[in-house]
Amino acid sequence: MSRGEETRRHIVRCAAEVFNRVGYAAATVSDLEEATGLRTGGIYRHFGGKEELALAAFDHAVGCLEARFVEEATASPHAVDRLRAMVDVYRGLATEPAVPGGCPVMNAAIETDAAGSAALRDRARRAMDRWRQRIRALVEEGQARGEVRGDVEAAAFANLFLSTMEGATMLTGLYGDRKPLMDAADHIDAHLESRVRA
Amino acid sequence: MSRGEETRRHIVRCAAEVFNRVGYAAATVSDLEEATGLRTGGIYRHFGGKEELALAAFDHAVGCLEARFVEEATASPHAVDRLRAMVDVYRGLATEPAVPGGCPVMNAAIETDAAGSAALRDRARRAMDRWRQRIRALVEEGQARGEVRGDVEAAAFANLFLSTMEGATMLTGLYGDRKPLMDAADHIDAHLESRVRA
Repeated sequence: MSRGEETRRHIVRCAAEVFNRVGYAAATVSDLEEATGLRTGGIYRHFGGKEELALAAFDHAVGCLEARFVEEATASPHAVDRLRAMVDVYRGLATEPAVPGGCPVMNAAIETDAAGSAALRDRARRAMDRWRQRIRALVEEGQARGEVRGDVEAAAFANLFLSTMEGATMLTGLYGDRKPLMDAADHIDAHLESRVRA
Repeated sequence: MSRGEETRRHIVRCAAEVFNRVGYAAATVSDLEEATGLRTGGIYRHFGGKEELALAAFDHAVGCLEARFVEEATASPHAVDRLRAMVDVYRGLATEPAVPGGCPVMNAAIETDAAGSAALRDRARRAMDRWRQRIRALVEEGQARGEVRGDVEAAAFANLFLSTMEGATMLTGLYGDRKPLMDAADHIDAHLESRVRA
């Protein structure tokens, strides 16, 4: 890797944490200088501007988070076990976040809901869509293999799963208390066993 | 009401919408001037600074939202019916929000999760605590009257209810699509009938 590429990656990693904690609009030049140990001129030699850096940082944060899900979801081939493994990943994020500052997709969704970067909003939608698609596919594959009840509406379940776990991530962050996330995880686990598993 | 008090209320109402849509840190002086039709000097004659205005605007936004819940929750005295009425209020917010820009408490929770105003964060925690307490009290009163199953853990149910509905509010906002909020509402309704109602 070239020295320039190494510096670029260092900036993206540091900026991902700053933006996820502070917010894209609220993060200042000095927040980014402090986190990277570089002057603004040195940072923006590698990026066209703050939005380009924000998008690279968002992609990095989402990549770190998605890596945690890939790791866990290979445990068992059974669809319901895989969905439970996803719940367990959320449980683990309460104590060991992929990137400090909460869920990068929810953060970007909230920050761009009426203003801010349209490109960032588009990235947030596409990330959330990948997650919805992943859950929907697990349900539908499970139905095809007889592991999941036929009356489960896959798209509605994906919305429910993500609403519950993302909302709980917000509550757990607000209080600095794992309980809301654990309560949500327990509920989705129980729902998976009583209403989803065939 | 004095002219000064009238102007102050006008500023708070307009600022509540700006802050809820754009964010507290991201909202600029010209956003506030445009929304209020006043110059910055005229705005800050009534407030000690941006934080004081932000707190008043937050309180106003939460007040508008809570008024919607009070309105609905008086429908029936039965605890489970009241909880279902709260779900219906969330359904209504999808098409007719109390304040444009999503849930003010979630927005403030996300924005202040690692930076921003400590006073605003404290306000967000206290608002969410009022809602958790209201749900918990409904469950416990329902248990005392034999309307709610004894095995429902009131605090866990309050966390689940708010996680699910707030997370769904975020997804519905992200996509501009009512379905995530309707899916979450349907799920909580079904859970209330199958696992909460005695």
